[in-house]
Amino acid sequence: MPEPALIEYLDAHRSEFEEDLCEFLRIPSVSAASEHRDDIRRAAQWVAAQFRRLQFSVEVIPTEGHPLVYAESPSVDGAPTALVYGHYDVQPAEPLEKWTTPPFEPARRDGNLYARGATDDKGQMFTHLLSARAWIETKGRLPLRLKFLIEGEEEVGSDNLEKYIAANRQRLACDCCVISDSAQFAPGQPAITYGLRGIAYYELRLLGPNRDLHSGTFGGSVANPANALVRMLTALIDQRGRIQVPGFYDAVLPIGAEEREQLARLPFDEQQYKRELGLDDLAGEEGFTTLERRWVRPTLDINGLTSGYQGEGAKTVLPDRASAKFSFRLVPRQDPDEVTRSLRQMLQSICPPGIRMELIDHHGSPGVMVPLDSPYMKAAARAIQQAFGASPVFTREGGSIPIVATFHDLLGAETLLLGWGQDDDNTHSPNEKFALADFHCGIKASTILWEELSRIGKSAAAVD
Amino acid sequence: MPEPALIEYLDAHRSEFEEDLCEFLRIPSVSAASEHRDDIRRAAQWVAAQFRRLQFSVEVIPTEGHPLVYAESPSVDGAPTALVYGHYDVQPAEPLEKWTTPPFEPARRDGNLYARGATDDKGQMFTHLLSARAWIETKGRLPLRLKFLIEGEEEVGSDNLEKYIAANRQRLACDCCVISDSAQFAPGQPAITYGLRGIAYYELRLLGPNRDLHSGTFGGSVANPANALVRMLTALIDQRGRIQVPGFYDAVLPIGAEEREQLARLPFDEQQYKRELGLDDLAGEEGFTTLERRWVRPTLDINGLTSGYQGEGAKTVLPDRASAKFSFRLVPRQDPDEVTRSLRQMLQSICPPGIRMELIDHHGSPGVMVPLDSPYMKAAARAIQQAFGASPVFTREGGSIPIVATFHDLLGAETLLLGWGQDDDNTHSPNEKFALADFHCGIKASTILWEELSRIGKSAAAVD
Repeated sequence: MPEPALIEYLDAHRSEFEEDLCEFLRIPSVSAASEHRDDIRRAAQWVAAQFRRLQFSVEVIPTEGHPLVYAESPSVDGAPTALVYGHYDVQPAEPLEKWTTPPFEPARRDGNLYARGATDDKGQMFTHLLSARAWIETKGRLPLRLKFLIEGEEEVGSDNLEKYIAANRQRLACDCCVISDSAQFAPGQPAITYGLRGIAYYELRLLGPNRDLHSGTFGGSVANPANALVRMLTALIDQRGRIQVPGFYDAVLPIGAEEREQLARLPFDEQQYKRELGLDDLAGEEGFTTLERRWVRPTLDINGLTSGYQGEGAKTVLPDRASAKFSFRLVPRQDPDEVTRSLRQMLQSICPPGIRMELIDHHGSPGVMVPLDSPYMKAAARAIQQAFGASPVFTREGGSIPIVATFHDLLGAETLLLGWGQDDDNTHSPNEKFALADFHCGIKASTILWEELSRIGKSAAAVD
Repeated sequence: MPEPALIEYLDAHRSEFEEDLCEFLRIPSVSAASEHRDDIRRAAQWVAAQFRRLQFSVEVIPTEGHPLVYAESPSVDGAPTALVYGHYDVQPAEPLEKWTTPPFEPARRDGNLYARGATDDKGQMFTHLLSARAWIETKGRLPLRLKFLIEGEEEVGSDNLEKYIAANRQRLACDCCVISDSAQFAPGQPAITYGLRGIAYYELRLLGPNRDLHSGTFGGSVANPANALVRMLTALIDQRGRIQVPGFYDAVLPIGAEEREQLARLPFDEQQYKRELGLDDLAGEEGFTTLERRWVRPTLDINGLTSGYQGEGAKTVLPDRASAKFSFRLVPRQDPDEVTRSLRQMLQSICPPGIRMELIDHHGSPGVMVPLDSPYMKAAARAIQQAFGASPVFTREGGSIPIVATFHDLLGAETLLLGWGQDDDNTHSPNEKFALADFHCGIKASTILWEELSRIGKSAAAVD
């Protein structure tokens, strides 16, 4: 059980925490918009000032894009080091007319705080800063060493983050990483995400004749790049949802009976899922449940198609080119580079005469999985149980968070994905919100987490 | 042989004919651009004035769009009636910077006249007006009755033409129709087009979830409309170029040995065709030559593809919709309505669960074929031989000219497609031109054609 003094402090300072978050949310730190460059800098400085107040050593690090904020507390003998990652930049707020209250004027309604960045990620990231504040103002020190790496480019691709991590492995050395930038399983049902899918994203461009042709005059005698594109894409996946790229499943482990049972026990309501998506029928790879299809199995989705005439009405053009963006979601052990090699070979072998192909490899990152029996995982589960009053469920996530693979590969550290948000928080949409109850439970869970982690001891990886 | 007086008149008035055409070409009658509405009216009035000069009865007929010009000469006892169709509107001239001389300031270079509309269709259409002028100014009368239907919306879809024809079948009654709005087979090799492909143009729209989804979070569990689209389109045609819509080939006649030989004899240079298209390989339905694939066989070409993210880089979206524009070229005896019925049924049967489909039937028109042994065809061949000094080759055309089917269906008349242009005349492109030699040969061929047709006699169809 956490020390009563800490919990009393949290209870006594609820209004102050909310006010401080509101101050943070009033800075329109939209990373995608160059007119917000000064706001981005102001947000980085605001974050840095928070750390200074806690006597952390702080640095605002310039990059080719927006600055990183790095901060660390003193090392604690015999206790491990945790690295918290988050971001202070936010998505653009447009369309503004769809917001009930302005995106950068935080407003409380029905127990929620509405603002751009409320949950993604200012509000969630801030919980870990406030828990450190609680420790320092109550006990004078933290029970473990904390490092914080807070970036300003998460919403625009994190272009400068990996470079920084690769060049500063010693500085960032840690026993585990903590990220709060996602959602609970459902209201009242916190979750820890132990698996993420990877991704391999491509663009296939097919070129035919040297110009758009009249489909009447030339049609039938010339390979049509759009016809070729649909045929080549169709060859990549069969009607049962099985991907046909040679060797694609070689490294994929079958789902274990235990995990299968555990996923089946999750309170997932398929009818509601369909209702929310406006669908009568779901679909996917034969032989798997909906959650398995979303979390445990690889996929192929076309993300974009472009060719020929796309305006109103009809134009009888035989287009000179056609292109598709498409991506595989990968599961742990699948290697994006291997997929690229095999895919390129397959596409070249089925590219028809009269068509030249170009395959662009946009980006790839492997899937990751954190062992459920890791001591960090167990510490996080205990902290969440005490703060939220409910044991977390263990879930996977269909999306990819490349930073988690980077932390694994470059720092040798597993990441605890502790989402305090909800699925309906409208991240990236108008009326983004964060439930104030979730905000305070998050601070509490983080406060307890530092204590729980401190009991694990220091691993070799983090010895300075 | 034509009367010497006629030929002398043509020779003596070459400059005048060219000057008159230049006057016509200086009117920027761009039908697609509303700022040219007054120019369109001016062009219609200019055409009407040409007919008045010849004592034709003339009417400028308002429509919901741009006006039609209708003109007719008196009937001639025992002689047939020919209906000439053409258009006074032109394509937009953009991109203007690619013109060597301004599009509406006709310029002579290397024996060509450069201007927008020079060949499409002002110059070609005008040959039939000038031949009538030659007859009237030389002989005081035409040897047959001529009717002219000249529209101002050909370049924007001829929306009001068919309605007018359907409502005025008696007025437009004729023995044969004449259109000069296409090209010769090659320089020095005139042609008569005896077959046109029809068309059946569709748009297939597939709808999936009620919004764009994150391809990581949802991918694999929801039918992706773009994945479904490429699969459904691929099912329509096999790798050998055979269309898979049930019954599609039922009405298609096999190509006759005689026609096959005749097409093989045409001086078609496949190497040059590839070079001009920038292709190393041609493609198409197995078992047919390039000209057969272009003219005699039906096709399926995708004309446009749209789905998801089409900007730069990557976006991990599972799109809520996907759509394609595609069209079949049809050969004579294939019924566009039958094709639509069978296509719709097939697409519905392969539309996967989780996807709603909508099939829009944009437009259809059947293929047409004019019997090679018709007396009108023979008359046209004689006229061309005398005017151009070379016998025409008989060709088909892969494109569709719906008005030809309309004339067949509503007026019961075959159409003579007598193209005076060349393939490289840059119709619809910058630097449109018309060779002055082709212009004058066209006038001469038309002058002789009226005489040749007058000898055939009147059919029952055109009895008033």
